[in-house]
Amino acid sequence: GVKKHILVIPGDGIGPEVTTWGKAVLEKIGADFGHEFTFDEALMGHAGIEATGNPLPDETLAKAKASDAILFGAIGHIKYDNDPSAKVRPEQGLLKIRKELGLYANLRPIMLFDELLDASSLKPEILKGTDILFFRELTGDVYFGEKKRSEDRNTASDLMIYHRYEVERIATKAFEAARVRGKRLCSVDKANVLESSRLWREVVQDLAKQYPDVETEHMFIDNAAMQLVKNPKKFDVVLTANLFGDILTDEASQIAGSMGMLASASIGDGTGFFEPIHGSAHDIAGQDKANPLASMLSVALMLEISFGLKEEAKKITDAIDKTLKAGFRTGDIADANTDKSKILGTKAMGQKVLEYL
Amino acid sequence: GVKKHILVIPGDGIGPEVTTWGKAVLEKIGADFGHEFTFDEALMGHAGIEATGNPLPDETLAKAKASDAILFGAIGHIKYDNDPSAKVRPEQGLLKIRKELGLYANLRPIMLFDELLDASSLKPEILKGTDILFFRELTGDVYFGEKKRSEDRNTASDLMIYHRYEVERIATKAFEAARVRGKRLCSVDKANVLESSRLWREVVQDLAKQYPDVETEHMFIDNAAMQLVKNPKKFDVVLTANLFGDILTDEASQIAGSMGMLASASIGDGTGFFEPIHGSAHDIAGQDKANPLASMLSVALMLEISFGLKEEAKKITDAIDKTLKAGFRTGDIADANTDKSKILGTKAMGQKVLEYL
Ligand SMILES: CC(C)[C@H](C(=O)O)[C@@H](O)C(=O)O
Ligand SMILES: CC(C)[C@H](C(=O)O)[C@@H](O)C(=O)O
Repeated sequence: GVKKHILVIPGDGIGPEVTTWGKAVLEKIGADFGHEFTFDEALMGHAGIEATGNPLPDETLAKAKASDAILFGAIGHIKYDNDPSAKVRPEQGLLKIRKELGLYANLRPIMLFDELLDASSLKPEILKGTDILFFRELTGDVYFGEKKRSEDRNTASDLMIYHRYEVERIATKAFEAARVRGKRLCSVDKANVLESSRLWREVVQDLAKQYPDVETEHMFIDNAAMQLVKNPKKFDVVLTANLFGDILTDEASQIAGSMGMLASASIGDGTGFFEPIHGSAHDIAGQDKANPLASMLSVALMLEISFGLKEEAKKITDAIDKTLKAGFRTGDIADANTDKSKILGTKAMGQKVLEYL
Repeated sequence: GVKKHILVIPGDGIGPEVTTWGKAVLEKIGADFGHEFTFDEALMGHAGIEATGNPLPDETLAKAKASDAILFGAIGHIKYDNDPSAKVRPEQGLLKIRKELGLYANLRPIMLFDELLDASSLKPEILKGTDILFFRELTGDVYFGEKKRSEDRNTASDLMIYHRYEVERIATKAFEAARVRGKRLCSVDKANVLESSRLWREVVQDLAKQYPDVETEHMFIDNAAMQLVKNPKKFDVVLTANLFGDILTDEASQIAGSMGMLASASIGDGTGFFEPIHGSAHDIAGQDKANPLASMLSVALMLEISFGLKEEAKKITDAIDKTLKAGFRTGDIADANTDKSKILGTKAMGQKVLEYL
């Protein structure tokens, strides 16, 4: 067995409720396979601000750097959303940890569980067979470019900026993944308008020459947002910038039936960071309503990507598959045909998956 | 009857094929209602570059300023898309005319024809009843902010920038429209990350106080891209920035069944500019395959918005409705249930609508 130290950062909103179950899955896997997983916990986001005034307390960053992987919950609070002039914001914690840990590649697999085909607003025949792996750049773009506000507060700007090496390193990861998947890569940009996109396209075009076995396509973001609804099956690996990736992956998550089912892995220079795609969902926080499956799937990604434990990862997705096949659902993935007695809260759903594990 | 001078700018790709039918509809309406519509034609985009080296020839701009309304086709050419280092690009013509005419508000109505419900990839029950009016800001944002490329060509940037007055004037138009529609306005931004979005949100929050009868909501762009697929019915008026609007409206067009059906109106300080949402579609250009309905619907918007001719506008949408009810389709909106003999080319479809008119 392996020895790994995992930092759990529950974060805000439904974060604590769902990471509890991600952690429980890790403990069970550790026990069953004879791995030694040790845990620590730290604050971030609104939780960090409340306790220390800082959305990414120094202690959290130090613990993050010292761990083998991080399991994160969610970030954000409605209080700041409605106050555009707030100086300190929960999201700064997430952006800072991404930057500090060099997590430049955000992998978001859009995988479908057959049982949930009907939960999507898309027609099942459009959806069936969809299997997309997004590579979203995560430490550049307009997220990290200089932000300015004029003294009279009447003008505001953000710099959308990319450096060649930033595009190269994420594109390389995407090409490598395409090579061992469907051998198709679609790079999404807005090169007909943006200079940063033209650099992006140049770099991807250059790199494509080294991957003659991968069919490379370039698509404008507006078209991609459309094609994703029209024919999601046509995509294999999608490579895109930070902002475009933020938008496209959320759109794709809905296509997949529910945000509550999707996990993401952020990797790069340092410790890997694993989190659900869903946000803090304050409207249902603390009510035992959140879907714990995305956190559990985040753990599956952690096991596979950071620890190389494929068999263990597969056990988790299999257990979730069985739980769904048995008809159990949380509210967000239930539909008119769901047996009412099988609609479970966070805890009962987490417990069910543990049983199947 | 009224007297109006209309400039037709066919543009690139399928542009000329579709504007022919928009113009034909205008001529028919003019004759039937006793209006005197006069026409001129001008070049833009790739067509402008070929003829003069300039994507927006001076003559075109002069004619545009002297006309009462502009009917535009499409812009873009694959040649430039694959050459990120091209200095002169077709799209520059479109961006420049938007700026020169002060066309800061792009209105994109997402309207559904019942007959086409099945052409969407969304389930009919999700879609039915959807009626959204987008207000996309059109002369600011990262589209027009300073673009830079470092001397070593390894760094590229675009400035995402907004001024208070730019947000105010488009937001005012959106609130006014919401007031006479469903009284709901959703403003889309990324205020949890971007300073320009925080300015955007501040301005909309301030303005909302003057419209207590309109229910105002703020949504992050990633969430909006998702909600649009999940539950398009929940939106009435959507207000957003140039880049976000570009992405969301294309996504929404697919939701509506086909890009080939959607028209847009760009208005502001000067002459109104009317165009289909679809692009130049070079793959089908010159093959009598393009859908002429969006160009005809652009004319309906022109009649209503620029000339105040509501009855005439309604005649056009009614004629299109009848054409669809009679089972006629172009390839892009045909589905498995379409009678093969009723799948028409551009010309035959244009002719059909004229008959029903
Ligand atoms: C919370 C927010 C800053 C974040 C982002 O935009 O990156 C989130 O939407 C995500 O996708 O991880
Ligand atoms: C052609 C392109 C520059 C344009 C845009 O991005 O504005 C188009 O996509 C549109 O939506 O009108």
